[in-house]
Amino acid sequence: MFLCDIGNTSYHFLKDDVDYKEDVNKFNPSCIDEIVYYISVNQNIYKKLEKLDNWIDISTKIDKTAYYDTMGIDRILACESIQDGVIIDAGSAVTIDVVNNGTFEGGFIYPGVKAMLDTYKNISPALNYEFNFDLNLDTLPKNSKDSISYAYLKLIYTEVMSLNKPIFLTGGDSFKFAKIFKNAKVDKNLIFCAMLKYI
Amino acid sequence: MFLCDIGNTSYHFLKDDVDYKEDVNKFNPSCIDEIVYYISVNQNIYKKLEKLDNWIDISTKIDKTAYYDTMGIDRILACESIQDGVIIDAGSAVTIDVVNNGTFEGGFIYPGVKAMLDTYKNISPALNYEFNFDLNLDTLPKNSKDSISYAYLKLIYTEVMSLNKPIFLTGGDSFKFAKIFKNAKVDKNLIFCAMLKYI
Repeated sequence: MFLCDIGNTSYHFLKDDVDYKEDVNKFNPSCIDEIVYYISVNQNIYKKLEKLDNWIDISTKIDKTAYYDTMGIDRILACESIQDGVIIDAGSAVTIDVVNNGTFEGGFIYPGVKAMLDTYKNISPALNYEFNFDLNLDTLPKNSKDSISYAYLKLIYTEVMSLNKPIFLTGGDSFKFAKIFKNAKVDKNLIFCAMLKYI
Repeated sequence: MFLCDIGNTSYHFLKDDVDYKEDVNKFNPSCIDEIVYYISVNQNIYKKLEKLDNWIDISTKIDKTAYYDTMGIDRILACESIQDGVIIDAGSAVTIDVVNNGTFEGGFIYPGVKAMLDTYKNISPALNYEFNFDLNLDTLPKNSKDSISYAYLKLIYTEVMSLNKPIFLTGGDSFKFAKIFKNAKVDKNLIFCAMLKYI
């Protein structure tokens, strides 16, 4: 049995406690014969998978009435996996969702690390840097690299900390963000754990 | 006499109290015979203009020792134009700079409106929206359009307000941001006013 969480850029698989990714533009889902339980926020892939009998969409088993119509199924599942806290899912987008006593309170969507770096690079070649995740967020920067790092990291840090809740970090860039959110619980497989409850 | 503030995407001219823009990729600077006093953060354009006698770079007249090496000359000029406050220059990038009793305290660089909208659209077609500048920033959103608007606007709002200083708004998108920063002083020509002091 495989579990699969399909995002905008990759299929994220879990098989026998090992997780790995495949590019959405290159991977052929019909190459797997075993049962795959999946969720997908990627509508193009979703249409392909509907035709494959061994790919089973578990989103149909989830009560989505507490959420909004266009909310990604990965965010919904993550929210369903906790009773109280903030979930930061750091992938191609960084989604931040708040659950208060088992109830979804709302959330917001920030660009992911790669997307934001590309944004700065495209604005100006003078802003073509990696982010400094070791930045001191208490001091306004005086160099270009830290000026974009501060914008990206301090602003989300302040907002998340103001929510005053336990922080759960998941997604491919969770270990980067763990440098900023030092007290967060990091669980790369949060979505997979949530999926298992519905199988 | 023309004044010109050259950014990453456009030449911004002021001539006889009328300001207008020309695309950096299309405009030919040698078509102007009159004197043009200019600043440029665009290195490619800067190299062209050095060869034209009637284009006079006023950045050479400014004492930059209080700033950092790679800081844009437009930001430096804006800082030189105030004694105390936060300057938000909302163009292709949104630069936020803090001046405290005439001294530059540091700043950061956030993507501009268009750059950030493109970023979301490129992450997923499901995030292809305009920002809602009328959003209530006190409530966590429960729809996709507001989820990206909140991320873009609330985070910068909180950071700027935490600085607890008078706010000066300039740049092409200053009127959009004025909806968020309701007490800001909006001056689209802040940079031009600062330039005039050096002529």
